[in-house]
Amino acid sequence: MPEIVELNVGGVHYTTTLNTLLQDKSTLLHELFAGPEGRDTLAKDSKGRYFLDRDGVLFRYILDFLRDKALQLPEGFRERQRLQREAEHFKLTAMLDCIRGDRDARPPGCITIGYRGSFQFGKDGLADVKFRKLSRILVCGRVAQCREVFGDTLNESRDPDHGGPDRYTSRFFLKHCFIEQAFDNLHDHGYRMAGSCGSGTAGSAAEPKPGVDTEENRWNHYNEFVFIRD
Amino acid sequence: MPEIVELNVGGVHYTTTLNTLLQDKSTLLHELFAGPEGRDTLAKDSKGRYFLDRDGVLFRYILDFLRDKALQLPEGFRERQRLQREAEHFKLTAMLDCIRGDRDARPPGCITIGYRGSFQFGKDGLADVKFRKLSRILVCGRVAQCREVFGDTLNESRDPDHGGPDRYTSRFFLKHCFIEQAFDNLHDHGYRMAGSCGSGTAGSAAEPKPGVDTEENRWNHYNEFVFIRD
Amino acid sequence: MPEIVELNVGGVHYTTTLNTLLQDKSTLLHELFAGPEGRDTLAKDSKGRYFLDRDGVLFRYILDFLRDKALQLPEGFRERQRLQREAEHFKLTAMLDCIRGDRDARPPGCITIGYRGSFQFGKDGLADVKFRKLSRILVCGRVAQCREVFGDTLNESRDPDHGGPDRYTSRFFLKHCFIEQAFDNLHDHGYRMAGSCGSGTAGSAAEPKPGVDTEENRWNHYNEFVFIRD
Amino acid sequence: MPEIVELNVGGVHYTTTLNTLLQDKSTLLHELFAGPEGRDTLAKDSKGRYFLDRDGVLFRYILDFLRDKALQLPEGFRERQRLQREAEHFKLTAMLDCIRGDRDARPPGCITIGYRGSFQFGKDGLADVKFRKLSRILVCGRVAQCREVFGDTLNESRDPDHGGPDRYTSRFFLKHCFIEQAFDNLHDHGYRMAGSCGSGTAGSAAEPKPGVDTEENRWNHYNEFVFIRD
Amino acid sequence: MPEIVELNVGGVHYTTTLNTLLQDKSTLLHELFAGPEGRDTLAKDSKGRYFLDRDGVLFRYILDFLRDKALQLPEGFRERQRLQREAEHFKLTAMLDCIRGDRDARPPGCITIGYRGSFQFGKDGLADVKFRKLSRILVCGRVAQCREVFGDTLNESRDPDHGGPDRYTSRFFLKHCFIEQAFDNLHDHGYRMAGSCGSGTAGSAAEPKPGVDTEENRWNHYNEFVFIRD
Repeated sequence: MPEIVELNVGGVHYTTTLNTLLQDKSTLLHELFAGPEGRDTLAKDSKGRYFLDRDGVLFRYILDFLRDKALQLPEGFRERQRLQREAEHFKLTAMLDCIRGDRDARPPGCITIGYRGSFQFGKDGLADVKFRKLSRILVCGRVAQCREVFGDTLNESRDPDHGGPDRYTSRFFLKHCFIEQAFDNLHDHGYRMAGSCGSGTAGSAAEPKPGVDTEENRWNHYNEFVFIRD
Repeated sequence: MPEIVELNVGGVHYTTTLNTLLQDKSTLLHELFAGPEGRDTLAKDSKGRYFLDRDGVLFRYILDFLRDKALQLPEGFRERQRLQREAEHFKLTAMLDCIRGDRDARPPGCITIGYRGSFQFGKDGLADVKFRKLSRILVCGRVAQCREVFGDTLNESRDPDHGGPDRYTSRFFLKHCFIEQAFDNLHDHGYRMAGSCGSGTAGSAAEPKPGVDTEENRWNHYNEFVFIRD
Repeated sequence: MPEIVELNVGGVHYTTTLNTLLQDKSTLLHELFAGPEGRDTLAKDSKGRYFLDRDGVLFRYILDFLRDKALQLPEGFRERQRLQREAEHFKLTAMLDCIRGDRDARPPGCITIGYRGSFQFGKDGLADVKFRKLSRILVCGRVAQCREVFGDTLNESRDPDHGGPDRYTSRFFLKHCFIEQAFDNLHDHGYRMAGSCGSGTAGSAAEPKPGVDTEENRWNHYNEFVFIRD
Repeated sequence: MPEIVELNVGGVHYTTTLNTLLQDKSTLLHELFAGPEGRDTLAKDSKGRYFLDRDGVLFRYILDFLRDKALQLPEGFRERQRLQREAEHFKLTAMLDCIRGDRDARPPGCITIGYRGSFQFGKDGLADVKFRKLSRILVCGRVAQCREVFGDTLNESRDPDHGGPDRYTSRFFLKHCFIEQAFDNLHDHGYRMAGSCGSGTAGSAAEPKPGVDTEENRWNHYNEFVFIRD
Repeated sequence: MPEIVELNVGGVHYTTTLNTLLQDKSTLLHELFAGPEGRDTLAKDSKGRYFLDRDGVLFRYILDFLRDKALQLPEGFRERQRLQREAEHFKLTAMLDCIRGDRDARPPGCITIGYRGSFQFGKDGLADVKFRKLSRILVCGRVAQCREVFGDTLNESRDPDHGGPDRYTSRFFLKHCFIEQAFDNLHDHGYRMAGSCGSGTAGSAAEPKPGVDTEENRWNHYNEFVFIRD
């Protein structure tokens, strides 16, 4: 058996080493290539390459996994389920664990960020807005996912039921008031913004309470941002 | 006839086994490769590969289907209609059923989720928002698709006509008040958010009715999210 | 001349039949491959393949068209203009007609859907919203495209000028009140939602007119959805 | 020197004619292939193909340019900068001019479309909306780009400074009131909608002025659409 | 050792020069190809090509880097992490620096642009809107990223703490009032718009202050745009 092995996987040609193919003892590739009994069951194509009757394109990732012992798929990889089928066929349990673990560690789902905001006005009124003023950033979604994304910055004190992490809650909020930091946290954890909507408040027939800044009151709005992880 | 068959499909080379090609008796491939009569009608290219005058790229999925007897296309696959044409050519009715069944089981369409919400304020007023408060999550769309996505969480009691599943309704709502759960349900069923819009309410010349929290009333808003499945 | 023809199109190798190449008498391929005069002008590469000095990748669709006599491009195909150039080079007028006809039949453009909506409240007030209430779905865009998408469900009675189909109108509305049905119609015709925005209404200093439900009045909103076909 | 030339560009094989390679006298390809002095500096691969130590994939577009003397890239082509590097290497100034000219003629940038709208109500009030009513479509962005997109339909009369085309303005509006026509113009010029947002107006403590339709006044809203060209 | 080297990288064939492979002395490729000791450790495939047991597809960018000594990846390249692994394997520190530097120079993150706007009305009232009127464009996000994008056009005077560039701020605004210029700046720096939302203001029970234009006041709105760089 030569050290360099030429493979024909469903018509796509790969070249690798025997060492790479034998890297994991539990796999079908080890069964096939470890000894003469296995190799004898392998057919060869007309150029003498060992033949595997599987999808040729996806074998690229099977081989990469064997070389590096780690799963590193392209961003936005779209053949995850097809790849899983290939890993199952080759009994590559370490790779299957990675594919599934990747999904378990980063389960798909949705988190909503909402904030009630207005503006701090200076003494010169409207033209002199000092800055954006947020009273609180609300976080809604599945408990476990909110915790994964926001960690220590998550305030759970309003959530009466410190129950199962699989339930949904709309009672979390953040300890800080920077929505951009919240967005960055979500982005770092693989969420993308899927939608956003805003609404103002209604005026009131009643006079505002004493001490409430009328102008600030008028500008109250609620902006809501939906994030999804595929 | 060798066990390993080299194919030239429109210029793209595939390698597979005779077994795979004969896997389904009703197909054109079975007709062509099962016996000498069929094989004699097959031309060969200059390297002796059996030649099929069809699209070379799509044959990848034809072969995958024959190997696994299951349809597993890449996420976001964009040549479904072209693939259907190939499956028709090869008389691969099992695969055609899968392509069509896939579409029937997950028909394209649109579902709208809307909610009327406000905030529960604590006794310290504006700065002390307790949590988001939703009165009800409305679900609009085709009856069958709404049922498929929301199952038992769908409340149909307001929908007077328990008629045909193909009609549209705007009278469904959910039994729970977590929009994130609704979004997750939609996402799990292959819908993606296509748009979102929000609006506040108008103030009223009349005094609010006794017992209504003025502040909560001012923050009433309606947010609407449109989901589409391609 | 063998029945199976091996082609080298700009370095990409295709295999097809003479029959396929001669399928359409008006084409350059027929000129080249029908008789010895044409074939003698054709150069061959070092492996004896007939050589065509054109883009190798796009020839896939030229060949598919000759095989099936129908144009079936991938969804979201992004080389339409490049393909048109190739079809022109090969004098494949039937294919050119398809490419252009495809564009004429489904011209790119934009349609806006807007609706004025509120909610039907039950006797228990806010908490007892019965359902979404739409007064009318407005359709704006080019007359011909609106008709193509909405057909019989389009009400043109408010449009005073039943003039040319190329003019724009903002006076169409639908005969039904299901925006999801409108979205489905648009989606079926190749439009995708590009944007969405909502707005509420202003309160009024005047008392609402007798018989108008105050709460329903407050929740009036206008949601607008822009659809584009590329 | 044979008329048909087989090339190995960084490992990707192309076949073309000597004629195509010599099409432009100022290029490195002409230097290399025009006479024996150039050709002698060219290495050959083991199969006798002329070898060029450059990116093999991008050479497809270099060759297409030489064949057609025109630049036609796929829609959404994402290797423009990489291609420019290749054109520079091959001293293909005509192609470089096209790549740069393409960018100069269609510079990236953003245009915002906003409109203030309401509805024309019939005599039966709310349920009898006649049509969408726009008072004016505002156009904001860089002067030159607004002019390129909207041409004669652009009204510049409110823009006091008819100065440099590189400055930004928010004082343009359109001569017509069809936002769909504006969207179509933008779409035709390669812009896509990147965002959209709407807002209603506030009620007023004062009674509306005589002659103002109260209902129409309440429905006033401002919708804004941001378009970007990459 | 011939000047032209044929490589088999995991089954994908590349052709390059010895010169290109030896371009950087610190790399594994230099170790392997510089002298006979290294070359003797290299296996060859059945066609005599030097064999490297690594991903064949990504080697395209490794080779491009060696040829041009510069990193130029396709726009929207999605295998950056996989490429980094390859660069690490080949000890191509110059390339690793580029990949990392590229990320450090353009760190992912989010910037929010908000503006409070209304319209300048002419003496003929509503129908005679002069132009959009923005009082101030607010910029929120991480200090360093805001500075990178907006440079001299950023006004930091309201930000009391001229502290670390890693903190978030919501107190920056722009020195000009053209949101399109802000969008262009963001777009030029690789940010894309991820969401947008608008809200109007509430009416007030009090009469507007003398000198305030009532109509302009009613149209006040806050539009917010979220930009993300991946």
